[in-house]
Amino acid sequence: MKAVLLTGHGGLDKLWYREDVPMPVLEQEHVLVRVSACGLNNTDINTRTAWYSKSVEQGITEQAVKQGYEDSNDTDASWGNNGIIFPRIQGADVCGVVEAVQGDTGSSLIGKRVMIDPWVLDGNKPGDTSKARYLGSEIDGGYAEYTTVSRRNIHVIESDYSDAEIATFACAYGTSDNMIERTGLSNGETIVVSGASGGVGSASIQLAKIRGATVIAISSEEKAPSLYKLGADAVIDRNHSDLESEIKRAAGGEVDVAVDVVGGELFTILVNSLKQGGRYSSCGCISGPMVNFDLRKLVYRDLQFTGATIIPQGSFGRLVQYISQDKLKPILAETWPLKDLAKAQESFMKKRHIGNIVVTI
Amino acid sequence: MKAVLLTGHGGLDKLWYREDVPMPVLEQEHVLVRVSACGLNNTDINTRTAWYSKSVEQGITEQAVKQGYEDSNDTDASWGNNGIIFPRIQGADVCGVVEAVQGDTGSSLIGKRVMIDPWVLDGNKPGDTSKARYLGSEIDGGYAEYTTVSRRNIHVIESDYSDAEIATFACAYGTSDNMIERTGLSNGETIVVSGASGGVGSASIQLAKIRGATVIAISSEEKAPSLYKLGADAVIDRNHSDLESEIKRAAGGEVDVAVDVVGGELFTILVNSLKQGGRYSSCGCISGPMVNFDLRKLVYRDLQFTGATIIPQGSFGRLVQYISQDKLKPILAETWPLKDLAKAQESFMKKRHIGNIVVTI
Repeated sequence: MKAVLLTGHGGLDKLWYREDVPMPVLEQEHVLVRVSACGLNNTDINTRTAWYSKSVEQGITEQAVKQGYEDSNDTDASWGNNGIIFPRIQGADVCGVVEAVQGDTGSSLIGKRVMIDPWVLDGNKPGDTSKARYLGSEIDGGYAEYTTVSRRNIHVIESDYSDAEIATFACAYGTSDNMIERTGLSNGETIVVSGASGGVGSASIQLAKIRGATVIAISSEEKAPSLYKLGADAVIDRNHSDLESEIKRAAGGEVDVAVDVVGGELFTILVNSLKQGGRYSSCGCISGPMVNFDLRKLVYRDLQFTGATIIPQGSFGRLVQYISQDKLKPILAETWPLKDLAKAQESFMKKRHIGNIVVTI
Repeated sequence: MKAVLLTGHGGLDKLWYREDVPMPVLEQEHVLVRVSACGLNNTDINTRTAWYSKSVEQGITEQAVKQGYEDSNDTDASWGNNGIIFPRIQGADVCGVVEAVQGDTGSSLIGKRVMIDPWVLDGNKPGDTSKARYLGSEIDGGYAEYTTVSRRNIHVIESDYSDAEIATFACAYGTSDNMIERTGLSNGETIVVSGASGGVGSASIQLAKIRGATVIAISSEEKAPSLYKLGADAVIDRNHSDLESEIKRAAGGEVDVAVDVVGGELFTILVNSLKQGGRYSSCGCISGPMVNFDLRKLVYRDLQFTGATIIPQGSFGRLVQYISQDKLKPILAETWPLKDLAKAQESFMKKRHIGNIVVTI
């Protein structure tokens, strides 16, 4: 079949488009999905560059992209902490049609349009994430004509949105939904959203509005009109010289909740914007992971920080329901053919788009 | 009446013992308590030295103790974030007898032995902590013959323990109970406790055992036997050269929960000891507040960090119940007469004791 193989940690040259890749083997209780579209995400690039396992001393992001870390095939090199085996087919945001089912039941799925919950949790107990694997990371994903996954991870989707539009949701919206769930954001509260024009950020604006919150979005100035359209109540220029004051001015005081995908210097600004008992949650730190932090803020202001990576079983259904009920708008920035995945990633890394970039198969 | 006044930020010389202090005025719905014993806590010293408001550049703890910060009468100088007015009577851990009640009801309290919930929350809504004040911090406390507090904060205590023993519980055990509650520690989980021989630490050992957890205590080696007696399943020398490995060895793997009062370098060690989805909670950072921290640990391991300072209304009752049911042992290290509070604090700051130091009136 046609697929793009990630052949090792490194630059874009590690992505090989091939037309002779073997079809995936269909295991018991698994489903074979003919992929029609697959969305791009930061995790594709972080995995390729081994960013998850790199210390700051070794250089991150840009430098890692250029150098290619052949040596990073360790257990920390993936999102799910369970290591990468090459070659790997990446791609977490799959929309496709069920082609075959292995097992006694589930044949009614055949021919149905589906989304895939990309977190595969094989632990024995509910909540056990020790064996968590991520589609396109520890297991092969959607940059291919076909992919296979446990039937538990298959969700039939009924919607007027196109396949490419459906392929914008799983990773970014699922991650954002889990991140917001971890803060316990409730009706009438105020939330500040960093990186608000990105996949997770634009998802967070919409998901926070569904919960009845007031949303303050941080982004570049030229993207403000689009973010107001998504529902943001205020948009703040990320280059403002006094971002903390600007957040508090827009919120009319300190905020209840901050959700973050940026990290770096913004971490302290967001934490300082929180009210007593405020909650911060993060699913990434694309501007840098190392922060110098005053523990007294956490302790004496009764704050709560949470990480939001592995999504608990069962919560993907909430997202599928929002989509079916037209509560979420897909934001499809660009589409590329599968064979041009490397070019699509190049465009993705420039961060000039709003929403998601998708390859179609 | 007799009382010790804190006359400003600074050294032990700021504590003045006087016998001509006016009796407190009894407000509506308040109770006058004749104090029989009052326990010492880190917050007494942190407030005196203005540690809560000091940046690292200005020097903390030891240096602050020596210098005395006359200039720190700002809104951050107290535990409750609402500023200090001098002179102030400190003391959060009160055991005493109700002498008078102001208001229509509550006369049945007169003559009863009581503990005081030291967190006074005057907010309009449940959970509103914006006007939180702490006994002995924003309002006068128990280093005096008499103190007064809202009737909501009065808990009748039925126990065979002495007044001095009862005065070991409120601040340390209340703080620890809230800290553990914020982690959601449950039966069968493993918890690591830092500063385990201190007031909060020794409370945490006992409170975690009540919840059915396996407890790993970090302390100095000579205090290990006492901590085993309190219920610790393992005691680790805080000076061990590889504390992270030592914790994991004692736990038989990564731990579910860490509770901390030490901070500084120990913060990273504790966080690195947590399993995926693990929870860290802190009520202090006596070895230093500034930490250099890798956000990827929080994010990709789904961790949760919480601060534990202001105790939600209603939770003090749980502690009073534990004491009445003999589930908690008081650990009374030393008693001093009220007039020797400065000497008692000197002894407290040497950190050679296990449990709590109390002044009796």
